Amino acid sequence: MKIGVIGLGTMGMGAAVNLVKQGHHVTGCDLRPAAREALIAAGGAAAGQPDALPRDLDAVLVLVVNAAQEQEVLFGPQGCVKLLPQGAVVICSTTVAPEVARSLEAQLAEAGLLMLDAPVSGGRAGAEAGTMTVMGSGAPAAFDRAAPVLEAIASKVWRLGDAAGVGSTVKMVNQLLAGVHIAVAAEALALGIRAGADPQVLYDVICTSAGSSWMWQNRVPHILAGDDTPASAVNIFVKDLGIVLDQARALSFPAPIAATAHQLFLGAAALGHGAKDDAFVIRVWEALTGIKLPDGG
Amino acid sequence: MKIGVIGLGTMGMGAAVNLVKQGHHVTGCDLRPAAREALIAAGGAAAGQPDALPRDLDAVLVLVVNAAQEQEVLFGPQGCVKLLPQGAVVICSTTVAPEVARSLEAQLAEAGLLMLDAPVSGGRAGAEAGTMTVMGSGAPAAFDRAAPVLEAIASKVWRLGDAAGVGSTVKMVNQLLAGVHIAVAAEALALGIRAGADPQVLYDVICTSAGSSWMWQNRVPHILAGDDTPASAVNIFVKDLGIVLDQARALSFPAPIAATAHQLFLGAAALGHGAKDDAFVIRVWEALTGIKLPDGG
Repeated sequence: MKIGVIGLGTMGMGAAVNLVKQGHHVTGCDLRPAAREALIAAGGAAAGQPDALPRDLDAVLVLVVNAAQEQEVLFGPQGCVKLLPQGAVVICSTTVAPEVARSLEAQLAEAGLLMLDAPVSGGRAGAEAGTMTVMGSGAPAAFDRAAPVLEAIASKVWRLGDAAGVGSTVKMVNQLLAGVHIAVAAEALALGIRAGADPQVLYDVICTSAGSSWMWQNRVPHILAGDDTPASAVNIFVKDLGIVLDQARALSFPAPIAATAHQLFLGAAALGHGAKDDAFVIRVWEALTGIKLPDGG
Repeated sequence: MKIGVIGLGTMGMGAAVNLVKQGHHVTGCDLRPAAREALIAAGGAAAGQPDALPRDLDAVLVLVVNAAQEQEVLFGPQGCVKLLPQGAVVICSTTVAPEVARSLEAQLAEAGLLMLDAPVSGGRAGAEAGTMTVMGSGAPAAFDRAAPVLEAIASKVWRLGDAAGVGSTVKMVNQLLAGVHIAVAAEALALGIRAGADPQVLYDVICTSAGSSWMWQNRVPHILAGDDTPASAVNIFVKDLGIVLDQARALSFPAPIAATAHQLFLGAAALGHGAKDDAFVIRVWEALTGIKLPDGG
């Protein structure tokens, strides 16, 4: 298949490289020359703007940062929708509000295109290994057309419904849980440190106890190693919990735990750590209480 | 060994029955005749008050509700400490603040007794199967003396330090995480229901995604089944998150996520659901937003 991948960040690059490995003709699109060169080195082609993508694509995978960028790369002055052939499928994997996914589906239908609401989970490791989870919803024809792409990038594809919106709803709930679990992992570890527990022992014990979570197991090691290189950044959860809270407000739905966690990610961003690994939301407690974080040494 | 078990609730009864199965001479102590009769039927003996326990016990396992009860059954007018032989070990498995565990260790040492700070995790299922996790700290002699007891009730015994307090600190951190994970599971599921997602599908997807937690996997099925029979009750987390917050306050340590979750368990208790399964903290959102919970049908 001829496939465009818009957004060659951590997730998009991983997906693009896996598509190349499966023998597809892949053209990546990113503003950053370094990202384009990396994909070319991996066997793909590259474009600097969406309207410079090939005119005969079967599918476009969009993995940009947010809804505004998604709208721009599709329908903006340099967007790619105008050059896509009728019946091509646009796979929208950016985390957006369910209402945004529904609106995009309608806009793309008007342009004669299929749309799959297909947010992903699995992080950098999953993207690089081609083992992401896709929380998909959309018309059966969209799933059929997108199948070879999803097969190359994911080990699990959920078919959650026949229209856009369901996939993004499930992703929103996942991000609510993921964000809160990271923030409370930091709160709990910080309290344990202040109370005199050894953080490594605390980590080991909780991993086998009822207080464990996927995020506890995955993120606390970053803190123990003293390594704030972002696997996923604080700012991602400033954004994603923001989407959750905007959507909850639109539904008149109170989400007090998510709101509290969001404030803590905002606090970490305010301290200048927005681009650091999301587990380093723990620097909020470091700043407030003066606890000594592990130095990994 | 001759062992006393004080408190024949869910956890204590499970432990006592497993001790009987391992061939120990077990005398259980509980105010409730039904609990005493159940242990006698399982092959143990029973006492109505701690000072009616046998005078030659090697070990006493205390699994009562809170620190006040623990103090009472050991040192109250009908407490058992006065009849224990020198060098016996008191295994304190009630969830208490670390400072309470340290104080009890000092009081018991004055009485010539060993003390193990040994809170447990694993819930009703773990207690019944003898597969609890023990978060232990105390003198090596206390661990040695308690070993046959721990072996009968737990599949994992952590030796976290040589003095009381460390075990309870780790347990406190575990309870912070466990309580928040239950409350946020309810918040996320409720939001998903309001946004139109199928709760069973949401459960299945999140179980394999980064938003998963031990509590999500363990507790959400209770909500899906519409079964609020308490495996562990809302009031347990009113108490345990209360301990966490008291302890955090004593350390001048802000724990905003735990504080928010505590308010939600208090809300569920205020609605009259204190004795219901802890996952039914979701009734707070039912009351606030009118969402329809699964009826299990």
